[in-house]
Amino acid sequence: MSSASLDALIAALTCLPGVGRKSAQRMALHLLERDRDGARRLAGAIDDALERVGHCERCRNFSDQSICPVCADANRDQATICIVETPADVLAVESSGAYRGRYFVLLGRLSPLDGYGPDELGLEALEAQLEEGEVGEIILATSATVEGDITAQYVADLAGRHGIRSSRLARGIPLGGELEFVDSGTLSRALDGRQRFQ
Amino acid sequence: MSSASLDALIAALTCLPGVGRKSAQRMALHLLERDRDGARRLAGAIDDALERVGHCERCRNFSDQSICPVCADANRDQATICIVETPADVLAVESSGAYRGRYFVLLGRLSPLDGYGPDELGLEALEAQLEEGEVGEIILATSATVEGDITAQYVADLAGRHGIRSSRLARGIPLGGELEFVDSGTLSRALDGRQRFQ
Repeated sequence: MSSASLDALIAALTCLPGVGRKSAQRMALHLLERDRDGARRLAGAIDDALERVGHCERCRNFSDQSICPVCADANRDQATICIVETPADVLAVESSGAYRGRYFVLLGRLSPLDGYGPDELGLEALEAQLEEGEVGEIILATSATVEGDITAQYVADLAGRHGIRSSRLARGIPLGGELEFVDSGTLSRALDGRQRFQ
Repeated sequence: MSSASLDALIAALTCLPGVGRKSAQRMALHLLERDRDGARRLAGAIDDALERVGHCERCRNFSDQSICPVCADANRDQATICIVETPADVLAVESSGAYRGRYFVLLGRLSPLDGYGPDELGLEALEAQLEEGEVGEIILATSATVEGDITAQYVADLAGRHGIRSSRLARGIPLGGELEFVDSGTLSRALDGRQRFQ
C-alpha cells in the first residue's frame, strides 16, 4: 500500500467479524474515497460506545445506565426470567414480540476448559435475585448445543434448589421448514417431543 | 436496543460497504463483548487515516506524503503511465506484478450527469505531465463499461494531441474461464480480438 495510515486502517478493520483482508481493503478505500463524514461518525461512535456501554447490574445486558430499560420497566412480568447467553439473544427474543418478562444474560456458557465457570456467568447474582422470592419461572433459552444444554441443566438445578420451576424453549421443526431439508438431529427431537393434535 | 450508544454504533457501522443493519449489530456486539482493544485500535486508525491520508500530487493515488512511494521510486519506468479509475485499481495492477511504470488515478470516470467532467478527473494535471516530454506510452486501464470506454477514449485523444501512443488492456476470456460460463459480450470481444496462434 502507498500509505502507512491506510495500511493500519485496513489491518484494524479486520478485527470486525466476517471481515477479511480483502473486504477490509474495500471498506478502507470506500471510507476515504466516498464517506469521510461516515468514517468520522464511526470513529466517534466507537469511542462513545466504549466509554458508555457497560452492563446492567440486574440482567447483565448491555446498558448505558446501571439498570437497563427492560429491568427498569415496571410493566414487564417480574416473575419470569429468561436466561440467555448473549445480548444478541435478548434482541432475538425481543423481536419475536412473544415475551414480556425479564432477562438474565450469562455472557457465555459453562465451558470449564475455556475458563467459563459459574462465577463468569454471574450465577451468584442470579441466585441473589431468585432468593428475593418474586420469581416464579425460569425460561432456559441457552443455545441448542452440548454446552448450552449443560448450562441450562446447571441453571435449572440452581432454580430447583429455590423451589422455582424451569422450562426450556421447544425444540422441533422451524417455521416454514420442509421435512426433506431438516437435519436428522432436529427431526429426531421433533419426533420425541411430538404433541397431541387437536 | 437497551443502550443509545450501542444503537448509535450500529447505525454508524452501516456506513461500511456491504454492511446492513444485521451485520452491523453483530459487529457492534462483537466489538463490545469480545474485542474492546480492537475497537479502540479501529477508532484510532480511522481518525489517523482521516487526518493523514491525502492524495499524491503526481498520480492522485492515496498517500501520506505529497509524493507517493511509487512516484518517488526512480527505479520505475518513468516513460509509461497506467491510467486507472481508483486506488483499488492500482492495488490490483500492482498485485499482478506485471507492471513497472507509473500510475495516474482518475478518482472516477467521465460521467457528466453525475458531475464528473475532465476537471474532476485531474486531466489538466495529467496533461501537464505529458507536456514534460518524458512519457512515451499511456496504458488505459479504465473499467470495461460504457463510461470506462468513453473515459479511455477521452484520455487517448488527449495523449494523441501530444503525440503519445495509447494502448488498452486486452479484453477476452479470463484465465481459467470455461467457455460455457463466459458471457456472450466477453465472447464476442474475444472473437473480434482473436490473435494468431504460434
